[in-house]
Amino acid sequence: MNKRMVFYTLGLILEIEAAAMLLPAVVSLLYREFDVFGSFMLSVLIVAVLGAALLFLLRKRNRTIYAKEGFVIVSLAWISLALFGALPFIISGQLAPVDAVFEIASGFTTTGASVIGDLGSVSRGLLFWRSATHWIGGMGVLVLMMAILPSDTDGSVHILRAEVPGPTFGKLVPKLRKTALILYLIYIFITFIEIVMLLCGGIGVYESFIYAFGTAGTGGFGLRSNSLTDYSPYVQWVIAAFMIVFGVNFNLYYLVLMGKIRSALKSRELWLYLGIIIASSGIISLHIWSIYRNIGDTVRTSVFQVASIVTTTGYATADFNTWDGVAKGLMFILFFVGGCAGSTAGGIKIARLLLLGKTIRRDLRHMIHPHSVGVVKFEGRRVDDNTLRGVTSFFVLYCVVLAASFLLLSLFEPGVDVETNVTAVMSTLNNVGPGFGRIGPYLGYGFYSPASKIVLSLAMLLGRLEIYPLILLLSPETWKRR
Amino acid sequence: MNKRMVFYTLGLILEIEAAAMLLPAVVSLLYREFDVFGSFMLSVLIVAVLGAALLFLLRKRNRTIYAKEGFVIVSLAWISLALFGALPFIISGQLAPVDAVFEIASGFTTTGASVIGDLGSVSRGLLFWRSATHWIGGMGVLVLMMAILPSDTDGSVHILRAEVPGPTFGKLVPKLRKTALILYLIYIFITFIEIVMLLCGGIGVYESFIYAFGTAGTGGFGLRSNSLTDYSPYVQWVIAAFMIVFGVNFNLYYLVLMGKIRSALKSRELWLYLGIIIASSGIISLHIWSIYRNIGDTVRTSVFQVASIVTTTGYATADFNTWDGVAKGLMFILFFVGGCAGSTAGGIKIARLLLLGKTIRRDLRHMIHPHSVGVVKFEGRRVDDNTLRGVTSFFVLYCVVLAASFLLLSLFEPGVDVETNVTAVMSTLNNVGPGFGRIGPYLGYGFYSPASKIVLSLAMLLGRLEIYPLILLLSPETWKRR
Repeated sequence: MNKRMVFYTLGLILEIEAAAMLLPAVVSLLYREFDVFGSFMLSVLIVAVLGAALLFLLRKRNRTIYAKEGFVIVSLAWISLALFGALPFIISGQLAPVDAVFEIASGFTTTGASVIGDLGSVSRGLLFWRSATHWIGGMGVLVLMMAILPSDTDGSVHILRAEVPGPTFGKLVPKLRKTALILYLIYIFITFIEIVMLLCGGIGVYESFIYAFGTAGTGGFGLRSNSLTDYSPYVQWVIAAFMIVFGVNFNLYYLVLMGKIRSALKSRELWLYLGIIIASSGIISLHIWSIYRNIGDTVRTSVFQVASIVTTTGYATADFNTWDGVAKGLMFILFFVGGCAGSTAGGIKIARLLLLGKTIRRDLRHMIHPHSVGVVKFEGRRVDDNTLRGVTSFFVLYCVVLAASFLLLSLFEPGVDVETNVTAVMSTLNNVGPGFGRIGPYLGYGFYSPASKIVLSLAMLLGRLEIYPLILLLSPETWKRR
Repeated sequence: MNKRMVFYTLGLILEIEAAAMLLPAVVSLLYREFDVFGSFMLSVLIVAVLGAALLFLLRKRNRTIYAKEGFVIVSLAWISLALFGALPFIISGQLAPVDAVFEIASGFTTTGASVIGDLGSVSRGLLFWRSATHWIGGMGVLVLMMAILPSDTDGSVHILRAEVPGPTFGKLVPKLRKTALILYLIYIFITFIEIVMLLCGGIGVYESFIYAFGTAGTGGFGLRSNSLTDYSPYVQWVIAAFMIVFGVNFNLYYLVLMGKIRSALKSRELWLYLGIIIASSGIISLHIWSIYRNIGDTVRTSVFQVASIVTTTGYATADFNTWDGVAKGLMFILFFVGGCAGSTAGGIKIARLLLLGKTIRRDLRHMIHPHSVGVVKFEGRRVDDNTLRGVTSFFVLYCVVLAASFLLLSLFEPGVDVETNVTAVMSTLNNVGPGFGRIGPYLGYGFYSPASKIVLSLAMLLGRLEIYPLILLLSPETWKRR
């Protein structure tokens, strides 16, 4: 384990976080929240000094890293981001430490689950910061680091592999820095368009940023307890559309940029993703028609809620807890789907589900014809056995984490019903946000005990980093000298 | 596809079912239920004649079968058993056709889920028949066929593989018929001991048979709507103990018979199974202590409920729906565990869970040391990659079936809450019986629509046959000529 390099990179990450906190500090200054501004500046100081200390102390180092260093760097980076990102909330006294960490973990992991009961009581600078963490966490902090800093690390591909979600990273361009930069430029560009379109809807600059951050990262933090229910149909449609846009594999946008629209449109994953959204919205429309009795409202409500859950954003324009069994049951399943691989969405992801389906089909064929050699293809290319094994193995591990988190939550919360606990774990692990029962889209996680909040914060991190990095961080094998 | 051999074997199965129905016919005669006796005799006639017709028409046949014939035979046999086994209920007019099929599918698959609201209104002969199907289904009907009929089939191992649950069949003796016979003799012997012990508890002969059948097959059909709650502590302890006994891999009993007690006690699966029961009972005892405030009642209630769910039997001496979140949450997880491989229990099974855990560990190690060659061992022997792939593949398929059944159930039942629908699917697929919400241990499945009852009947069959046979039955690939 190249520990010097691990902690040196951590220093870089802290400097980036300190820099990122300057933006909400300015916002709080604009809104004349001077004490919050002070909390931000103190946080910036602490984080920046700590980062600088790491950078200085570890400047002499071996620059080569391997897979295990990649996992450790990503795990430690994300844990640090959540812990230090919580400082402004803690220093300003607006949230208790555990609550603050939960909220910022929820932000960076783009979950959007909140423990804040009364959003009106929290200052604007802090709300801006928690939404900004969605945007930063969506594409990944280490990806950002590679995009903006001259890379002097051998093996940074291991970092990218560990941070970018989905099973199929590594298609774009061979130069990592260029890849990271292109991803970020696309991300910034689409976010910018969304802000402009939201401004056209007549909502203010502050609100437009908040919702664009929440949509781009597929996060879900907003400004009102009933989420987007009271906003105009135009704003709701814009956000629904952009949620869907940010759930698409960014490689496809890159292909479009290169003029390869045709090969972008050949993506099976894309069509399955859109198909799932259209089919689910259709079924749900039929079942909530009796509530609205109006084609416009019905379709908008269905599409919005479906897009929000599939892309694991978590915004709402209706309380799906009050829907009938069909609509609610369908939503329950959609929690697991997630967006496309290589998007900012969480969940299992469509590419994985597709590969799982193909693996099952191959194994079934193998049972009938024991001597057949099954080849699995994805997006026109043959998928090797290692990748397939990785996908099924991830799925099993995912179920294990789901069960274990649920058990822990049950142990800590004897008074909470099973439906709420099950969906709390599903929702945090898939980085969605709301759930059923006491954590419905208009409600929050505030009633959970500190122990449960820690379990759920870990579930969010496990979900965002797709489990492996955090488990490997804790494995003695990782730290053993060879 | 050797269709003649497939349907010839089906003929044999029907003859066995006709013969099995003679026993409840005698019971109904003893209880002077003459019209029910008539229904049984008419059913026997129909099934026996149909079976004989198949045997006569297909007497000229090629006797060789392969893996796919094995799957098709097992699937068709089990579907026929459920359909024709329902006849006495239908002919006597005591249940509607869909209800009767649900009830008998629930019987043969050893689920124990019931649609009968008032057990007092059903005649004793019919209740005896539905409990007898637990006993027959527990060890398997085709295993029974092999044990009692002189085998003239080449490749019957494919049938046994498809019918005996768990990933590790094929350890006993090389002669299949002898294997099947030994399994059945052990099964009969332990059932006999249980009947004797129940008789010692002062419950009648009829009741002793009913509960011994329900325990041996890990089924769960009984005689009272509150299951075993009103029975004496002695009877409850006997049944708890035998549920645990029937959840053990029968190969271990064979080893004990051969005097190899030591190697039987070396089984990792056995100790994990017992460990899960002890640990879960311990935790639940702490959490239901406040209900009983008495060490005997508390421990007995915990052990009974845990044993009942882990072994997928489904008997109850308490309504776990009223327990606190910890106890209920733990029960929720136990639904998936199932007993040991090679037992009569349903569920995922401990051997599979162990292998899944080992596979994950191997894959994690592979991520840190990409060039390591991971070997997975089980019960001291190396497990080959094909078996491991089969286990993960089964798990993924299992989750897919779970999700699909839940979706269908949601579509048919807009008025039923998610908790009830989720646990109904879990409970039928794992062959447990009761669930949470409206299908608690003192309640039944009677309120579901016919469409849902069909979905749940299929889930029971999928669970008992471990999915593959039924899916392969429907696959065009299976029926294609090579």
